[in-house]
Amino acid sequence: MNVALEALTAELAPQFGERWITNPSRLETFAYAEGHHAKLIPALVVQPETTEEVCILMAATHRHGVPVVALGAGTSLEGNASPVELGLTVDFSRMDRVLEVSAEDMLCVVQPGVTRVALNTELRTTGLFFPLDPGANATIGGMIATRASGTNAVRYGTMRETVLALKVVLPDGTLIQTGSRARKSAAGYDLTHLFTGSEGTLGLVVEATLRLHGIPEHVLAGSFTFDTIEGAVSTVINTIQLGVAVARMELLDPAAIRACNVYSHLDLPELPTLFIELHGSEAIIEDQRATIEAIGRDLGGRDFAMSTDADERNRLFRARHDALPAARASRPGAVVWSTDVCVPISRLTDAIAGAHAAIEEAGLTAPIVGHVGDGNFHVLFVLDPAKPEEWERAGRVNDSLVNHALSVDGTCTGEHGIGLGKRQALVREHGDAAVDLMRTIKRAIDPDGRLNPGKVFELTPATAKDDHG
Amino acid sequence: MNVALEALTAELAPQFGERWITNPSRLETFAYAEGHHAKLIPALVVQPETTEEVCILMAATHRHGVPVVALGAGTSLEGNASPVELGLTVDFSRMDRVLEVSAEDMLCVVQPGVTRVALNTELRTTGLFFPLDPGANATIGGMIATRASGTNAVRYGTMRETVLALKVVLPDGTLIQTGSRARKSAAGYDLTHLFTGSEGTLGLVVEATLRLHGIPEHVLAGSFTFDTIEGAVSTVINTIQLGVAVARMELLDPAAIRACNVYSHLDLPELPTLFIELHGSEAIIEDQRATIEAIGRDLGGRDFAMSTDADERNRLFRARHDALPAARASRPGAVVWSTDVCVPISRLTDAIAGAHAAIEEAGLTAPIVGHVGDGNFHVLFVLDPAKPEEWERAGRVNDSLVNHALSVDGTCTGEHGIGLGKRQALVREHGDAAVDLMRTIKRAIDPDGRLNPGKVFELTPATAKDDHG
Repeated sequence: MNVALEALTAELAPQFGERWITNPSRLETFAYAEGHHAKLIPALVVQPETTEEVCILMAATHRHGVPVVALGAGTSLEGNASPVELGLTVDFSRMDRVLEVSAEDMLCVVQPGVTRVALNTELRTTGLFFPLDPGANATIGGMIATRASGTNAVRYGTMRETVLALKVVLPDGTLIQTGSRARKSAAGYDLTHLFTGSEGTLGLVVEATLRLHGIPEHVLAGSFTFDTIEGAVSTVINTIQLGVAVARMELLDPAAIRACNVYSHLDLPELPTLFIELHGSEAIIEDQRATIEAIGRDLGGRDFAMSTDADERNRLFRARHDALPAARASRPGAVVWSTDVCVPISRLTDAIAGAHAAIEEAGLTAPIVGHVGDGNFHVLFVLDPAKPEEWERAGRVNDSLVNHALSVDGTCTGEHGIGLGKRQALVREHGDAAVDLMRTIKRAIDPDGRLNPGKVFELTPATAKDDHG
Repeated sequence: MNVALEALTAELAPQFGERWITNPSRLETFAYAEGHHAKLIPALVVQPETTEEVCILMAATHRHGVPVVALGAGTSLEGNASPVELGLTVDFSRMDRVLEVSAEDMLCVVQPGVTRVALNTELRTTGLFFPLDPGANATIGGMIATRASGTNAVRYGTMRETVLALKVVLPDGTLIQTGSRARKSAAGYDLTHLFTGSEGTLGLVVEATLRLHGIPEHVLAGSFTFDTIEGAVSTVINTIQLGVAVARMELLDPAAIRACNVYSHLDLPELPTLFIELHGSEAIIEDQRATIEAIGRDLGGRDFAMSTDADERNRLFRARHDALPAARASRPGAVVWSTDVCVPISRLTDAIAGAHAAIEEAGLTAPIVGHVGDGNFHVLFVLDPAKPEEWERAGRVNDSLVNHALSVDGTCTGEHGIGLGKRQALVREHGDAAVDLMRTIKRAIDPDGRLNPGKVFELTPATAKDDHG
């Protein structure tokens, strides 16, 4: 702790009691970092329970000049919630309530600490669900911060399309609300989208209104194998061009299938495999299935197997569900570093071919899984944490993936965010002038640079440095 | 002209030649104002042809301290492009090219001056279309500025969901790019959405990348009459809750049908009428039609008539297409003032009932049309321009509509924007703190307040004043 943190503690510890955490062994439990970045221990953690408490915290940190990092489930992959400066970590785990569900308007109002799984559990009896499913059981606040998505964004959109309204506490403790419950609005600057994806650098989200969707009447799921990535990707492109509203279209490459065969004791052909899920009435999904099957067979697809039965669907999707743990288990003690580029879908075959070549050249083990309906794919580097030289090779492959994505007007991150790891890539993607505009906005809203310092971009351009470890 | 405009003219007139307009009779032709606001004549108009020229213009106006208003087709309804200060109007009519169409990625890159109709004409041979259809033939730049939509936003989204990337010239002449061609991205602050809907107050859009959609294989369209607004709205709510992806769901109230019967020589029952359009394969639209018909009949719907034949579809939709001209023609010499609230759909019946009561109490003629799938509806006040007292009554009804919308967490504008007319409503909707944050962002990006001055909010809160005339 430094002087500012001590002064803050003197002022607020009595009010927060057990929820004001300074004990080193308790603090250690907050050194979250699901990804490959260094696990940092916060200097101080507080667990607010109300919006009012968050306002009090922000006003006090403003007066004392203390940096603030918001923390959800700690499952982000680019060090997005890492406490790189001495400051206060605001853990939202006690603000985890679903405040309201409006079935008629198909929306809910939640606190930021609720996880996506807990939210869906609460929604179970309403006929509605929250579709977005990043790999981990992230909190809604964290998903807003990184503009997260998952496997069914191709149908239901990302957090960008899901967040209708926010309550946000600004760096000086002012509470604002953005958006409304209307499905569309032309009223003023789109502050909702400014905060969504800003990774906690502009304000702390204390309440969110989210769009929900009706639980589909029927679900049809299954898989389709191809001899080439191109056949699989072309099937996706043609399906989307025909306007077929698929719920999921996921690709596993042969290395991913191989890892899953071992991990889940399966016997799948080790070929590029599309996992497809359809939602709707019986007539609609049958029509969609027939369209996709015809397209896929024309493009060399085989072993087409789909089912509406829940157990059978789970069996068919098993490899997709297990892709990440299977990759991790394929090498004892390994850490997985997941990359995250997203390209226009016409360039996806090239992008994946380039990735395969780079992985092979680097001599790495790295299955590929992709949300191919969006053009988004992840290379899962399976790395030995004790071999820095392996990490360097992976870093070079990652750079080449990002550079290729940017060369075809794609993005350096489809859903993981910038955090610490992609700050240079952000500049390469948007250019100095656009990142300078982001800095201008940041300085206007958070003049002291206290909110999640060091993330997304450095306030002083010259010091920006990507951090792969 | 003042000194600054004269200095600007001395510097730039030679370069722009005929495209630098100072002649009063030519300037008069730019006093656009489709809506009910005062028609103001710009002091100076320029017609750039390239992005480079826009950069030059912005850098020069920055040096000379000259206000700048961007102008598209001039069809906005809230005085959004009105030149309220002595300054330069940048007319984008010569930047109207479609720069690229990528059929595989289902997107296009356009200059801001292309109109939505011209864009669709160019797309005709590609199998793709740009769905958004505000009432007028607006330019894409104007639609970005006001976050516009139209009748099929319920399926295809608004400009918010349509703009993938922008090139924007900042107030000092710096060119930036936002977004990419990727369908999703978590890379940094969402500048695309910040500019979309900012009504030209933060920068001038010089290029936009837009999502397109496949022309539907089949289109089924028709109408359904109800004894009550509630029956019609409940049909919409239930349809959406079942996840039926309707392309259009439009409501006309009895007064609107009456005006259309006169104007278009129709003989429709003067009852609340839903106009429905479905897009998709034959099997899908038949399934959707059956679902909607069953829901509607349960809720008292009658005279259900739908067709896939283009002529017959046009006949069935005639009243919807003609609603605005029919309202205008219902009273010789009248001007139509279109309101624009949007409410959560569960509150739509109440909102329309409240509007009917207020219209009747005020003794006004005012048909109602609604994009009811979005909860967005327009009261079309048919007013005598020579009777200010009528306008005052309409203003009071409009205020009551806005206040009701805000009381149920809706918005004061679904698609027309704030402009001059809804600046007070913006504050009522978002609160002082959120509008102050908008001001903070505005000042950071445009410190001299030169871009579209007076629109969305006044930079100095105390002087804000709504202007209904």
